[in-house]
Amino acid sequence: MTMTAVSLAVSELIPAFADVQSAAQRLSGRAIRTPLLENVQLNELCGGRVLIKAETLQRTGSFKFRGAFNLLSQIPESKKAAGVVTCSSGNHAQGVASAAAILGLKAIVVMPKDAPQIKIDNTKNYGAEVVFFDRHTESREEIVNSIAADSGMTFAPPYDHPHTIAGQGTCGLEIAQQAGELGATLDTMLVCCGGGGLTAGVALALSETSPNTKVYAVEPADFDDTARSLVAEQRLSNDSSKRSICDAILTPMPGEITFAINRTLLAGGLTVTDSEVRNAMRFAFNTLKMVVEPGGVVTLAAILSGRIETRDKVTGITLSGGNVDPAFFGSVLGG
Amino acid sequence: MTMTAVSLAVSELIPAFADVQSAAQRLSGRAIRTPLLENVQLNELCGGRVLIKAETLQRTGSFKFRGAFNLLSQIPESKKAAGVVTCSSGNHAQGVASAAAILGLKAIVVMPKDAPQIKIDNTKNYGAEVVFFDRHTESREEIVNSIAADSGMTFAPPYDHPHTIAGQGTCGLEIAQQAGELGATLDTMLVCCGGGGLTAGVALALSETSPNTKVYAVEPADFDDTARSLVAEQRLSNDSSKRSICDAILTPMPGEITFAINRTLLAGGLTVTDSEVRNAMRFAFNTLKMVVEPGGVVTLAAILSGRIETRDKVTGITLSGGNVDPAFFGSVLGG
Repeated sequence: MTMTAVSLAVSELIPAFADVQSAAQRLSGRAIRTPLLENVQLNELCGGRVLIKAETLQRTGSFKFRGAFNLLSQIPESKKAAGVVTCSSGNHAQGVASAAAILGLKAIVVMPKDAPQIKIDNTKNYGAEVVFFDRHTESREEIVNSIAADSGMTFAPPYDHPHTIAGQGTCGLEIAQQAGELGATLDTMLVCCGGGGLTAGVALALSETSPNTKVYAVEPADFDDTARSLVAEQRLSNDSSKRSICDAILTPMPGEITFAINRTLLAGGLTVTDSEVRNAMRFAFNTLKMVVEPGGVVTLAAILSGRIETRDKVTGITLSGGNVDPAFFGSVLGG
Repeated sequence: MTMTAVSLAVSELIPAFADVQSAAQRLSGRAIRTPLLENVQLNELCGGRVLIKAETLQRTGSFKFRGAFNLLSQIPESKKAAGVVTCSSGNHAQGVASAAAILGLKAIVVMPKDAPQIKIDNTKNYGAEVVFFDRHTESREEIVNSIAADSGMTFAPPYDHPHTIAGQGTCGLEIAQQAGELGATLDTMLVCCGGGGLTAGVALALSETSPNTKVYAVEPADFDDTARSLVAEQRLSNDSSKRSICDAILTPMPGEITFAINRTLLAGGLTVTDSEVRNAMRFAFNTLKMVVEPGGVVTLAAILSGRIETRDKVTGITLSGGNVDPAFFGSVLGG
């Protein structure tokens, strides 16, 4: 397959704005329309308005239910009996497990064995079977492909699928609507970014509903594949020897489809350190009264660390997940 | 003064529903219209719908800003220069301090010296002066009266004042409106109860906007003055030797005005133990992804502990505050 052939194939897989609207209809009554919150102290600190999309309050405790349900609900009748298989650090795992339970589908989830216990427990509690792998030495894709080949299960990709991206895009639709209800137009939108599914979905939704908003991906400093790829105009990978506490967004490189969207629609990428992430988790606890996991708080970390101008601006941020182990959370509070 | 004279005086101080509506206008653009949240797992656990009024997300991290701003904004011009004085375990302190800062008033707050550090720090950060007293050996009323007499400051009572109660009632107005937006009518409403200001305000608001809703006060087991007073049909006090982790709602006895409202409008009182409160804090962390302080989570503790029938019902609960010290929160998570 030539590069041109690949590019053509990818371009055909890019969801349209109408797909996000269809996803919103599918998710109506299933996903929660999470609130867009505002905090006086954060506004004062930033010298502008910060609108917080609280996806921590989404079903399964992260935005991932949106994309998972949108994808699973479109599995053809003939494929339903075999069920679904996916790989996930834990939030997509819960999203798929919960969506599968609602739709009556069998689910197997391949998770890193160092995933937070709360994510493993919840995934099992929703009824999925969990298979573990080593994040640093094994290929989750190979394990998933092997299971899918043996079982006939449908693979539900964590981010690089048009239905997943369109589902996450419903979060962006709501942000634009809710900002309007608050009398605000977003100058800037920061999105927590791993494989880029939420980022691409939100960027796609805002490109139609809030076209003057500049959308940025926010990543951990050593997992800034999207930021570097945007500059290089091609997909670059991360150094696999690096570590971070942001378990939810430690992906090896941007997705093909997500990057095809993000390279067109994003204004750029920002990065934050683990130390800044811990500070932001404490700020969320003390001031916002919200439980946010490391990978879900990188946007807040970015504005608290002055990575982008917020003065006299309206800045939107996703707080994209709240699935964090109590012991780890306690250690962050203690630090 | 005879009992009759007192009763007459109190009856004249009971706010009307129209006072709650006026308070809502005063608070518009000042207080946050906090979301009424719903969680799938909690619903499943309860076998019904539970609608969560998240006053943890209110300005100052508790509902108390509502009553404080409604009261302070009605101080006559001639009394403004002297400022305000109040007593509070910490949430009303922050409400008064924040409202005073907005209105340009000087504020002194008398706080128990064992109040959570976060409440003391925030109160000072909003610009108020803090005076400490011993919750178990000193009378905060005497200290407040002495300051007021010396300074000419206006006393801003934490619960037993018509403006305070009307302000807290705006929370109830929103609950009824938001339940309607969610297509629900509340069968039951549980309110965290200390002196009874929020309870009376919510009951007052719901008496007009959701008249078939049964409203219950929820208290710590050893601070069940309102529950016992409702049964006895007169105000009874708590045993001052008792202790509880629910610092925000440890009041000696119901207020005169609050009890006059509550004895007419409440369906009853429920109680929970400190151990049940800790469990509810962990549930709020793990499942709701919310930071809730002990006194703010007693309603959730009541439904998780089966104190009231939730099956096939719509139950509203206030999570009324989230101002909790990180070290204490960490210890609850660890337990």
